[in-house]
Amino acid sequence: MRISCQIKSTSYKECGTISAAKTQVFTAYPKLQPHTNIITMQVWKEYQQQHKERFLNELLDLLRIPSVSARGEHKDDMIRCAEAVEKSLKEAGAETTAIYPTAGHPIVYGEKIVDAVKPTVLVYGHYDVQPADPLELWHSGPFEPVIKEGKIYARGACDDKGQFYMHVKALETMVQTNSLPCNVKFLIEGEEEVGSPNLATFVKANKELLKADVILISDTSMLSMDTPSIDIGVRGLSYIEVEVTGPNRDLHSGVYGGAVANPATMLAKMIASCHDENNHITIPGFYDDVVEATPDERAKMAKAPFSETEYKTDLGIDQLWGEKGYTTNERTGIRPTLEVNGIWGGYTGEGAKTVLPSKAYAKISCRLVPNQSSEKITRKILDYFTSIAPAGVTVKAHEHHGGEPYMTPIDSNEYRAAAKAIETTFGKEPIPVRGGGSIPICALFEKELGLKIVFMGFGLDSDNLHSPNEKYDIYNFYKGIETIPYFHQYYAEGK
Amino acid sequence: MRISCQIKSTSYKECGTISAAKTQVFTAYPKLQPHTNIITMQVWKEYQQQHKERFLNELLDLLRIPSVSARGEHKDDMIRCAEAVEKSLKEAGAETTAIYPTAGHPIVYGEKIVDAVKPTVLVYGHYDVQPADPLELWHSGPFEPVIKEGKIYARGACDDKGQFYMHVKALETMVQTNSLPCNVKFLIEGEEEVGSPNLATFVKANKELLKADVILISDTSMLSMDTPSIDIGVRGLSYIEVEVTGPNRDLHSGVYGGAVANPATMLAKMIASCHDENNHITIPGFYDDVVEATPDERAKMAKAPFSETEYKTDLGIDQLWGEKGYTTNERTGIRPTLEVNGIWGGYTGEGAKTVLPSKAYAKISCRLVPNQSSEKITRKILDYFTSIAPAGVTVKAHEHHGGEPYMTPIDSNEYRAAAKAIETTFGKEPIPVRGGGSIPICALFEKELGLKIVFMGFGLDSDNLHSPNEKYDIYNFYKGIETIPYFHQYYAEGK
Repeated sequence: MRISCQIKSTSYKECGTISAAKTQVFTAYPKLQPHTNIITMQVWKEYQQQHKERFLNELLDLLRIPSVSARGEHKDDMIRCAEAVEKSLKEAGAETTAIYPTAGHPIVYGEKIVDAVKPTVLVYGHYDVQPADPLELWHSGPFEPVIKEGKIYARGACDDKGQFYMHVKALETMVQTNSLPCNVKFLIEGEEEVGSPNLATFVKANKELLKADVILISDTSMLSMDTPSIDIGVRGLSYIEVEVTGPNRDLHSGVYGGAVANPATMLAKMIASCHDENNHITIPGFYDDVVEATPDERAKMAKAPFSETEYKTDLGIDQLWGEKGYTTNERTGIRPTLEVNGIWGGYTGEGAKTVLPSKAYAKISCRLVPNQSSEKITRKILDYFTSIAPAGVTVKAHEHHGGEPYMTPIDSNEYRAAAKAIETTFGKEPIPVRGGGSIPICALFEKELGLKIVFMGFGLDSDNLHSPNEKYDIYNFYKGIETIPYFHQYYAEGK
Repeated sequence: MRISCQIKSTSYKECGTISAAKTQVFTAYPKLQPHTNIITMQVWKEYQQQHKERFLNELLDLLRIPSVSARGEHKDDMIRCAEAVEKSLKEAGAETTAIYPTAGHPIVYGEKIVDAVKPTVLVYGHYDVQPADPLELWHSGPFEPVIKEGKIYARGACDDKGQFYMHVKALETMVQTNSLPCNVKFLIEGEEEVGSPNLATFVKANKELLKADVILISDTSMLSMDTPSIDIGVRGLSYIEVEVTGPNRDLHSGVYGGAVANPATMLAKMIASCHDENNHITIPGFYDDVVEATPDERAKMAKAPFSETEYKTDLGIDQLWGEKGYTTNERTGIRPTLEVNGIWGGYTGEGAKTVLPSKAYAKISCRLVPNQSSEKITRKILDYFTSIAPAGVTVKAHEHHGGEPYMTPIDSNEYRAAAKAIETTFGKEPIPVRGGGSIPICALFEKELGLKIVFMGFGLDSDNLHSPNEKYDIYNFYKGIETIPYFHQYYAEGK
């Protein structure tokens, strides 16, 4: 499900068009020698060995806080979680920390400045998590972390508490061993899972505070621990909600059935119309701005390690689905998509109720690829649903949130530092890949702070992000803590 | 929304085909003179006047019990309600009463035998109610009855507590005034709203107990208090639930979106396929057994009082919907229909969640017209949904419950008695009409007990049955109590 589009590329933004970026011939980033400061390496390793149990227990404590940003009832949990994150930054060695209130959930900031002339790495992460529903499918409580077969099961174990916390413990390692090679800042927000509605305001108002040389994010995955990889791109997002209203109240389906447009049926018709028989998206203008991948890039993608049989077995499906003319890896990486994330209307409880519902709803989101604009696509989907409203119902649609697609350069000091760090601890050169997910704030960071981003994700696609039984391998957690200090070391050396 | 197909008909079952029934020329039932026993009438009236406040308060007490049969958590409330109904029968003068346990909710029985040679009327009703959701749309608690502008607002106010309780108070009136002209039996069940799954077993096992001459049911409506009417037919029902399964767990819509069939999208496509562009139902063989209404019957229906403008205004819609070639009254009365009663899948909570759901569900029901078989249609819908399962998902479908369409004769002693009773208290001859709803047990009663049914409903279609803010006009409640003794009187006289 990952795309190994092994291209040497400047960022999409720099290139002007992705196709321009992709015409560059792929060459591996320069082969760098392992860092020679054997003493530092040994000290980090020993420190982490001594404290590994505590590192894990601290993460488990953090996972026990149900910091679900989408639900109003967790407002206090969000504050509690922000306070716990701030405390952890302080204890790890951050000298300045703060909790910044926003119109929504607070943002946690922390920094350790070793020398103003040294480069500064800004670590971004998020302490909020997705809702845990459907609860009945969890094998254990989503906020009562358990360890089974070396994996931590809990909401947020991987996305993103487990991953941003590796950076906290990496900071501690470097501070405690007196080996921090650069300045480090932390920006840990509480609204990533709801589209970061208040982050732009904060970033714009705090450019000096957030001044840095690069942004480092662990909120993506690797192909596998045997095939380490670095994400060089994320898809954009447009997320809308549709409300279809028929009669002004729920009706008896016997008395009125057949004579009044049923909003659930009408919604189904509208959703059914979004894909044609080849599973192309039918919304007018949807593909207008898409930059098609070159035959060369697609040929390289086709060589990526991928087993269709394993993929299907893992998901328990007997047939794949998707846009005609594209492979599975292409469908999740270089093509835009439209998915129903939720649908509801009428009686959904136990047993039967003969009702003709007054309303039906759907949550629908699109993943976008380079050159598509989230704002434009959101407008197009909203317009589409309101324009195709069948007779007898009214349709309202509104935006939830969105984000632009983003690609990172790989011929940069930060990419080389990340790749070398991974090679040092994994013993293998990582593959640059394009991920299917979205990190909407990337484009914001680039625009407002003028910074590039490097993704160092240690999760796996099979970690059940956003699903029941989310997990994170303890091995990956420790591997991340082990790897991150090397990034700082190599990055500082390369500047 | 009511059909005044003013036909003189024996029951559908007797005629063999409804078209045969409908070819009979309509003539009004024989003009009957008002009952001349002025003393009895006066006594009833006085008794009811004296006790009207208590009658109402007793009903309110009954409405306070949340006897929702569909929900397991109301099991104890169901027992409590059955006990309250039994007590009310006893207090009204029933000499023998009993609560019969079933595999589901209990059945309440009561009888008052005045003379074994006199005719016996079996009153059927149900003390269970529909679920109250969506709760947020109620203006007051569904089980905290309030009276506003002369109407009782509560779940079950009309369907069917308010209506069966009129019979209890009518019995009391006749017993207390020593004027009961026939034997009366009560069969009040607790599972009508879930398809009476245990009633057949009970009826088959208790034929002697239930022995009677006719069945009297108040679980339908009138056109209006100004245009009294009697239902002569109810539609049948087939109710199924569809479960669509895609991947074995909820997936991240970014990582997997575009490559895996989305069960919500697939369900939408399947539902969208159930109606063609003329809103005919596309399920193969669906209309095979439908007996079309004759041009004569349709012409008479077209003359029924109906204002499209008022209908639309009442429902808050700007356009009607339905099967091409039929009027609104035809669509709800003589045509079979297919409605989505509920649909759900994926994330349906507050905010946004980028999930590709593992499962999606729908509750779907059809209303059937004479000569359609519930069993056959249920089979056809189940087969249809499983046969059109798109690649990449699996579809399971199962039956909730069903019931046969039913038509009552109007050239019978019981119809004449009901019509004369209504004429006596309303001052107007009632119109025979076909109702759009379903009372699945009618066919069962006819088959097992060999009895005809007469419907004397005092509700209105606008009473929000199965909807939030269900109501019942206190005027209608008292009017029913006033009218019912006349039915017994005229029925006994006619035998």
